[in-house]
Amino acid sequence: MSTVRRDPAQVAELLIEALPYIRRFEGSVVVVKYGGNALADGDEAAALAAFAEDIVLLQAVGLRPVVVHGGGPQIAALLKQLGIESEFRDGLRVTNAETLDVARMVLVGKVNSDIVGAINVHGALAVGLSGVDANLITADLRSAELGFVGDVTKVDPGIIERLLAQGLTPVIATIGSDSAGQSYNINADTVAGAIAEALGAEKLIFLTDVAGLRADPDDPASVLTRVSCGELEAMIASGAASGGMVPKAEACAHAVRGGVAAAHILDGRVPHALLVELFTDAGLGTMVQP
Amino acid sequence: MSTVRRDPAQVAELLIEALPYIRRFEGSVVVVKYGGNALADGDEAAALAAFAEDIVLLQAVGLRPVVVHGGGPQIAALLKQLGIESEFRDGLRVTNAETLDVARMVLVGKVNSDIVGAINVHGALAVGLSGVDANLITADLRSAELGFVGDVTKVDPGIIERLLAQGLTPVIATIGSDSAGQSYNINADTVAGAIAEALGAEKLIFLTDVAGLRADPDDPASVLTRVSCGELEAMIASGAASGGMVPKAEACAHAVRGGVAAAHILDGRVPHALLVELFTDAGLGTMVQP
Amino acid sequence: MSTVRRDPAQVAELLIEALPYIRRFEGSVVVVKYGGNALADGDEAAALAAFAEDIVLLQAVGLRPVVVHGGGPQIAALLKQLGIESEFRDGLRVTNAETLDVARMVLVGKVNSDIVGAINVHGALAVGLSGVDANLITADLRSAELGFVGDVTKVDPGIIERLLAQGLTPVIATIGSDSAGQSYNINADTVAGAIAEALGAEKLIFLTDVAGLRADPDDPASVLTRVSCGELEAMIASGAASGGMVPKAEACAHAVRGGVAAAHILDGRVPHALLVELFTDAGLGTMVQP
Amino acid sequence: MSTVRRDPAQVAELLIEALPYIRRFEGSVVVVKYGGNALADGDEAAALAAFAEDIVLLQAVGLRPVVVHGGGPQIAALLKQLGIESEFRDGLRVTNAETLDVARMVLVGKVNSDIVGAINVHGALAVGLSGVDANLITADLRSAELGFVGDVTKVDPGIIERLLAQGLTPVIATIGSDSAGQSYNINADTVAGAIAEALGAEKLIFLTDVAGLRADPDDPASVLTRVSCGELEAMIASGAASGGMVPKAEACAHAVRGGVAAAHILDGRVPHALLVELFTDAGLGTMVQP
Amino acid sequence: MSTVRRDPAQVAELLIEALPYIRRFEGSVVVVKYGGNALADGDEAAALAAFAEDIVLLQAVGLRPVVVHGGGPQIAALLKQLGIESEFRDGLRVTNAETLDVARMVLVGKVNSDIVGAINVHGALAVGLSGVDANLITADLRSAELGFVGDVTKVDPGIIERLLAQGLTPVIATIGSDSAGQSYNINADTVAGAIAEALGAEKLIFLTDVAGLRADPDDPASVLTRVSCGELEAMIASGAASGGMVPKAEACAHAVRGGVAAAHILDGRVPHALLVELFTDAGLGTMVQP
Amino acid sequence: MSTVRRDPAQVAELLIEALPYIRRFEGSVVVVKYGGNALADGDEAAALAAFAEDIVLLQAVGLRPVVVHGGGPQIAALLKQLGIESEFRDGLRVTNAETLDVARMVLVGKVNSDIVGAINVHGALAVGLSGVDANLITADLRSAELGFVGDVTKVDPGIIERLLAQGLTPVIATIGSDSAGQSYNINADTVAGAIAEALGAEKLIFLTDVAGLRADPDDPASVLTRVSCGELEAMIASGAASGGMVPKAEACAHAVRGGVAAAHILDGRVPHALLVELFTDAGLGTMVQP
Repeated sequence: MSTVRRDPAQVAELLIEALPYIRRFEGSVVVVKYGGNALADGDEAAALAAFAEDIVLLQAVGLRPVVVHGGGPQIAALLKQLGIESEFRDGLRVTNAETLDVARMVLVGKVNSDIVGAINVHGALAVGLSGVDANLITADLRSAELGFVGDVTKVDPGIIERLLAQGLTPVIATIGSDSAGQSYNINADTVAGAIAEALGAEKLIFLTDVAGLRADPDDPASVLTRVSCGELEAMIASGAASGGMVPKAEACAHAVRGGVAAAHILDGRVPHALLVELFTDAGLGTMVQP
Repeated sequence: MSTVRRDPAQVAELLIEALPYIRRFEGSVVVVKYGGNALADGDEAAALAAFAEDIVLLQAVGLRPVVVHGGGPQIAALLKQLGIESEFRDGLRVTNAETLDVARMVLVGKVNSDIVGAINVHGALAVGLSGVDANLITADLRSAELGFVGDVTKVDPGIIERLLAQGLTPVIATIGSDSAGQSYNINADTVAGAIAEALGAEKLIFLTDVAGLRADPDDPASVLTRVSCGELEAMIASGAASGGMVPKAEACAHAVRGGVAAAHILDGRVPHALLVELFTDAGLGTMVQP
Repeated sequence: MSTVRRDPAQVAELLIEALPYIRRFEGSVVVVKYGGNALADGDEAAALAAFAEDIVLLQAVGLRPVVVHGGGPQIAALLKQLGIESEFRDGLRVTNAETLDVARMVLVGKVNSDIVGAINVHGALAVGLSGVDANLITADLRSAELGFVGDVTKVDPGIIERLLAQGLTPVIATIGSDSAGQSYNINADTVAGAIAEALGAEKLIFLTDVAGLRADPDDPASVLTRVSCGELEAMIASGAASGGMVPKAEACAHAVRGGVAAAHILDGRVPHALLVELFTDAGLGTMVQP
Repeated sequence: MSTVRRDPAQVAELLIEALPYIRRFEGSVVVVKYGGNALADGDEAAALAAFAEDIVLLQAVGLRPVVVHGGGPQIAALLKQLGIESEFRDGLRVTNAETLDVARMVLVGKVNSDIVGAINVHGALAVGLSGVDANLITADLRSAELGFVGDVTKVDPGIIERLLAQGLTPVIATIGSDSAGQSYNINADTVAGAIAEALGAEKLIFLTDVAGLRADPDDPASVLTRVSCGELEAMIASGAASGGMVPKAEACAHAVRGGVAAAHILDGRVPHALLVELFTDAGLGTMVQP
Repeated sequence: MSTVRRDPAQVAELLIEALPYIRRFEGSVVVVKYGGNALADGDEAAALAAFAEDIVLLQAVGLRPVVVHGGGPQIAALLKQLGIESEFRDGLRVTNAETLDVARMVLVGKVNSDIVGAINVHGALAVGLSGVDANLITADLRSAELGFVGDVTKVDPGIIERLLAQGLTPVIATIGSDSAGQSYNINADTVAGAIAEALGAEKLIFLTDVAGLRADPDDPASVLTRVSCGELEAMIASGAASGGMVPKAEACAHAVRGGVAAAHILDGRVPHALLVELFTDAGLGTMVQP
Repeated sequence: MSTVRRDPAQVAELLIEALPYIRRFEGSVVVVKYGGNALADGDEAAALAAFAEDIVLLQAVGLRPVVVHGGGPQIAALLKQLGIESEFRDGLRVTNAETLDVARMVLVGKVNSDIVGAINVHGALAVGLSGVDANLITADLRSAELGFVGDVTKVDPGIIERLLAQGLTPVIATIGSDSAGQSYNINADTVAGAIAEALGAEKLIFLTDVAGLRADPDDPASVLTRVSCGELEAMIASGAASGGMVPKAEACAHAVRGGVAAAHILDGRVPHALLVELFTDAGLGTMVQP
C-alpha cells in the first residue's frame, strides 16, 4: 500500500464528485465498442492491458460492462498473408466465402480471444461470444454484390443478460448468422448500437482514435462536448460527420432514439478514458443525448 | 452539473486508487461513533449536515454504515437548565432516576432524532434506535454507587442487521435495559465497540476532536499512523493513552481482538474525514489492526 | 400450571366464540392509540404493564398490532419543571422551538421508550419509532400562529410494514418532519387514523378514559354500540361529539372512509379491554363501520 | 352475531388462559384417533358433525390436525349382512381374503369417506388416505394364523406432510400393504401412535368412550390426570391397564418414548373435548408425558 | 441387462420418431379413463399390472398422468352378493341409499385401492382420491327418479394439481358430493372429461374394449383414425355413435371444445396401448381434435 | 406426420427398453468428444448436421450434453495454406507462436463456430467456449521443446454448469491459458476427460472413426463390448491400446477413476450412434466402467 498522504480536501472533493456517479451507475449496463485499431497500434499489448484493467474496475464497482469489438486491420493482415486479394465496391470489401472464413477466424479466434484473455488475467471475469452463440445476432445479406456482409435483423440479448446476471463480462465478436446457419460479417459499430438498444443500456461508448465529434471535420479544436440526437442526425445528413465517423454517429443516434440514455464518442488513446468519462462531471469527448 | 475539466491523468490516478476500496468495502458494515462534542460545537448544524452527507454517500456506494452517538454536553446542559446538581465519584457523574430520565430524553429524543433527521433530508434512509428497541443492548448496573450507569452484558444485533438488509442506516442512542425493564445510561465508546464486534464489522471508526492517538500524549506531532492491538494495550497499561482516549482505545483493542478487521481514531473536524479514511491509500488518523 | 377444572361446556362455548375471531384476525394489522392519560394516572406502571401484556398476546396469536401514543400530560409536566410558560390560542398550546424540543424529548425519549421497554420485558418484540425515522410521517405547518404544530401531509408506512413482517411491534411517537428536516408535534389521534389508513389496517382502536361515544354527551348511559360513518359525521357536525372526542371521532370516520374495516372507541381503564373487544361477539365500547 | 355481553373480567381471564396455548400450538401437528364406536352410536351423524367442527376450528387457528380412524363395528355389520362368519383366535378375528375385502371397503369406502365428507361441508379442507396411498403404511403379516392382519413395519409420512403443508387435514384409514402389494388390516390405535411418532407430533389424542385411564380399572372415580411413560408401562405390565385400553396405552407409551411431546386419552363423548383439552390449563382425561 | 444387439438403424429410426413426442409431452397432463371392464376380465390382475407399468413409465419420462376409473361390474357383483335388487329406468340403475353405499365402498374401497396398490408396487407414486376429497367434484341430483345418481356441477382441480406438482399420480373414483355433504355416484366417462377440461389437459384417453370409434357401428373394419369435434357431434346426433360409446364420445367432444388438445378412444386390450398411442406417429384407435 | 402403422408390439418393446434410460439419464451430464476427423470427411456438412440433430434431441429429452472438439486436420490445412512448416518431435508438432495463433483461429473461430452454428439452426441452444472463457481451462507448458503445447492443470467448470442450468449446450474448443494469460493448444481427448471428471458427468463418449477398442489391435472383429478400468490400464501398459487410441483410453480410464460413471468409445460414422448407445440395452462400441 502506498503511503502518499494526499491533500484531504482535494481527495474529498473528487470523491464527492465521483461517488454519486458510482451510485447512479451501479448495476447499469454500459456497452463499450473497442476498436480494432487500438489493437493494431504500436504497443498493442500495453493498450489492451490498460483497457482490460478499466473493464475490471467498472465491473468491480458494480457496473455491468459489455464489450463489442471489430478487427479490420487484423483481418486485412491475414488476407494479405494468405495472398487473398479482395475486390472493393463503393469502398467496401467484397466478402466471399474464403474471406468470410478469414474474418471469422480472426475476429472470433484471435481478437476476441485476446481481449477475453487480457481481462481474465484478473480472474474468471469475461466470456467471449460471437453472434452465433445462442443465436445472439440474426443477420441478413446486405446485398448480393458485397457477398457475406450482413445487416442485423434481430438481437436476442438473452445470453448477454444471463452472463451479466452471473457477474461475467461478455466480449462480443460481430459475426452473425441467418436462420439457415449461414454466417455474415457485420459492421461492429452498428452491432454495438443494436446491442445497447436491445439491452436498454445506460450508456453506449465508442473508444476511437479521435478526440470526439468535430463541428468542423477539419478543425481538431472544434470537438463538441454534447450534441442532441437531432443535431447529430443533421450533421450526418449534411456530411459534417463523414468517413468512419458515420457508422458510429448513426449507431449513437439510433441507440439513443431507441432508449439508451446516452452515447459517447471518446478518444481511446487517453489513458483510462472510460473512468474519466464515467466518474467525473466534465467527462471526455462527445456525449449524444435525447 | 459543473463543467470544470480536471486533468484526466490525475483523476484517473485517484479513481484507480479509490475504486478498489469501494469494491472491497461493498456490503461491509462500518460502525461510526459520532461524538456529542461535534454537535455541541460552534456551527453544529453545518457539522451535522456534513456528517450526514458522508453517511449518505457511504450508503449510496454500497457500504452499510451504523452510527452510534453520545451526548454528554447536551445532557449536562439540560440538567443545568432543570437545576439538577450531580454528585461525582472518581470523576464520573452519579446517575439517579431523575438524571437518567434527562439522559434518556436528551439522547433518544433530541440527539438521536437530530442525526436521523439530518440524514433523512436526503431520503428515507435512517432509523433511530435505542438499546431498548428489540432488546438491542442488555445492560447491568456497574456499581451501586454510580446509580443507573450500565455495563453492556449482551448485544443482540438482530434489529440492526434487519435494518441494514433493508438498506437503512441505524442510528443508535446508548441507553440499555436489563431483563426487568430498568434502563441504564452507558458509555457510547464502549457500546460502539460492542456493536462492531457483534456485527463482525469491517471497521470501527471513532470521529473525535483530536488528530489520532499520540505516542507522546503531550506532543501533537506524535500522532501514530498504525498500532497493533498489543501496542495499544501496552499504551493503555502504561498510561500513554489517558483521559477520554482510554474508553476509545479500549473499545478499539477489544473490537479488533473480537474480529473487527480494523479500528480507527480520526479527527472528525477534518471535512469528510470518513471518505478520506475509507477511500485513499494513506487514510487519516490512527489505525488499529491485529 | 393451575389445575382449576372449569366447566367444559362453558369453556367450549367461549372458545367456539373466540376461535373464529382469532382465525379471522390472523395476520391483521390493528392500530391501537394509547393515550397519554393512561400513563399519567395513579398506578401508571401497572396500567402500562397490563397494556403491554395485551399487545404481547395479540402478537402471539398472530395479529400485528401497531401502537401510536401521545403524551400531553407528560409534556406539560416537563414544561412546568423548566419554567416554560405556554401561550394558548383557541385552547391550543403555541409550540415554539423550545416547547417543540421538550415535546420531542418527552414523547420520543420518555413515553415511547417506556412503552417499548414494558413490552420488551416479554422478549425482543417492540421497536420505537418517531415520524422522523425513515421519513414515516411528513408534516407541514398548520398555521404560523401555533408554531411547530404540524398536520400530516404524507404517511410512508414502509418501515412499519418491514417491522411487522419481521414479527416486531412498532410503537410510534407522533413527531413528524418536513422535507427540510424541520420537526413538528402532531395530534396523536390524527396520526393513528392516518397510519391505520396507510396500512389498510383491519381495525383502529382508541383506548380512552370514557366508555365509548355517547348519543347524549351528558348521559353516561347513552354509550352507543355501533354507529355508521355517516351517523358519526353527523354527530361531529351537530356538536353531539365534542371536546377531546372530536379528533378521535374524525380519525375514526376518516379511516373507515379510507378503507379501515372498523374503528373502535373503548374504555382503556377496563382491564384487557383489547382482548374482550377483539375476541368476543359483544365486544366493548363503540364500533364505527362503513 | 349474538350480542350477549359477557362479564369482561371472566372473558379476559379465559382468553388469557387460552391464548398462550393457541400461540404455543400454532403449527403443531396433533394426531387424533377417532374411534369407530363414536360413529356407531345412537346419533352418529350429530357426533360426527361436532367432531368435524372441532377439527375445522383447530385447523383454522393454525394447528395441523391429522385424523386416524378405525371402524370395527361397521365392518362387523357388513360381514353379518353378507353372511360371512369369522373364526376368532385369542379373541381376534381371523381375516381371510374375503374379510379383508370387506374391511377395506368399509374403512376406506365408507367410514373414511364419511369423515372427510363431514369436514368438507365447511370447505375443501380434508383428504382421505389409506396406508396404500403413496405407500404411507408398509405392513407385514402378524401371524399366518390370523390371516391378513398386519403389523406396521414402516411409516413414510411424506404424503401427510405435503397435505399439511397445503393446509389440508389428512384422514387416514388403517389399511397397509407390503412390498408385493398385498393389503393388511391393522389396529388403528397402533397406527395412530406410529404416525404421531413418524411426524414428530406435538400431541397424540385418543378420543374414546371412557373418561380416561383408571388407577383402578373397576373404579370410575380413579381416572388419572397424568401418568409418566414409566408408570404407564408398569400399569400395562401389571394388568392395571387391560382390554381395549391396552393398545391405546401401548401406543401412548411408544409414541412418547419416540418423541411425541404428550399423549392423551379423552372421553370423546364430552362435547368439544378436543378444544377443552388443548386450550385450557386443566384439560380433560389422562395425559401421558415423558 | 439383455445384450440383444438390435439393428442400429431401426432403433435410431424409432427413437428419432419417439423422442420428439417425449419432449413435446414433457410435463403434459394426460387424463386416462380406465374402464371397470378391464378389471372384470379373465386375468384382471395381469391386465392391471400391465396398465400400472405403463402409468409408471409415463410418469418416469415426465408426463403427468391422471387416472379416472369406474367399476360397474364390481358394483353389480356386490349388490348381487348382498341380495340387493335394483330397479332400472331407461336402462339406468336406480341408486337408493343402500345402493349408493355399495357403490362408494366398491369404487373407493376396492377398485381405487387396487389400482393405487398396483402402481405403488413400483414406488410411492400414486394417491387415491374420490370426488369428496378436498371437494374435488361437486355434484347435483340428476333426477329424483334415479336416486343418488349425480351430474358434475363443478370440478376444483386444486388437489390434483398439488399432487401432480409433487410427482404423484392421482387415481380418482367418481363419487361426488353436494354442499350439504350428500354423496352421488357419477358416470366415470363424464368425470374423466370434466377433469381433463378443468386441468387443461394435453390429452384425454379412454381405454375401452373396442378398437376405436367406427364409421359404421356394425363394421369392425370401419374404425376411424381421426375425427373432428364437429364430425363426432354429428355422429352422436345421427346415432352413428350409440350405446356405451355415447358418454365417451360426448366427453371427448366436450373436453376438446373446452380446451383439451386431443381426445382418444383406444383398445385397452392391446398391450401397452398407451405407449404406442403417445410415442409413435401412427398411434392407435381414434383421435378427436378441434 | 407420417402414418406408417408399425407393429404395436415391437414399438412397445423398444419403448419399454428405451424409456427407462430416458428416465435414468434425465438431467445427466454427458460429455461428447467430437473428433476433427468427422468434420474433415467427405460430406462433412451432412455429418455435422446429423451430429447436431442428435445433440438437440438429447437436450430435448432432458439430458445435458457438453461437446468437446478438436480440429487437427483443419489446423494442418491452414498451416499448409500459409506455408508454415512444422517441426515434429516424437511425432508431435512443435507449436511456436505463429502455429499457436493458427490453431486458436481454426479451433475457436472456425470448427467451434461451425458446430455451434449447426446446432443453433434448431434454436438458441448452443454457446461456444474456449478454455480462456471464464478461465475454464488453466494449462501449463508441457515441455519447452514442444512450444505452446499445454497440459491441463485445472478445470473450473463454473461457466459450463451455468450454461447447462440455463438449458444451453456448451461447445468447447481446447485452448487453455496460464495465469499470465499465455495460451496453449491442448489435446482434445485429454480435455474431454478432465471436463467430464470436473463435472461429475454420467458419461464420457468419444465419437471416433473406429468401431471401438480392440482386444487385438489388428483384428477388427475383436472389438470389446466392456472393459474395466483395470483391464484398460493393462492394455495401455502392454501396448494393446496404441496410437491415437492411447489418449482416448487414458482419458477414459482417468475419468472413470475420477467418478464418471461410464466412458464409451463409439464409431461416430454409424448414423445416430449417440442415440443407440444411450437408449438401448445393447448399446454400441466399447464401454469402460469401474
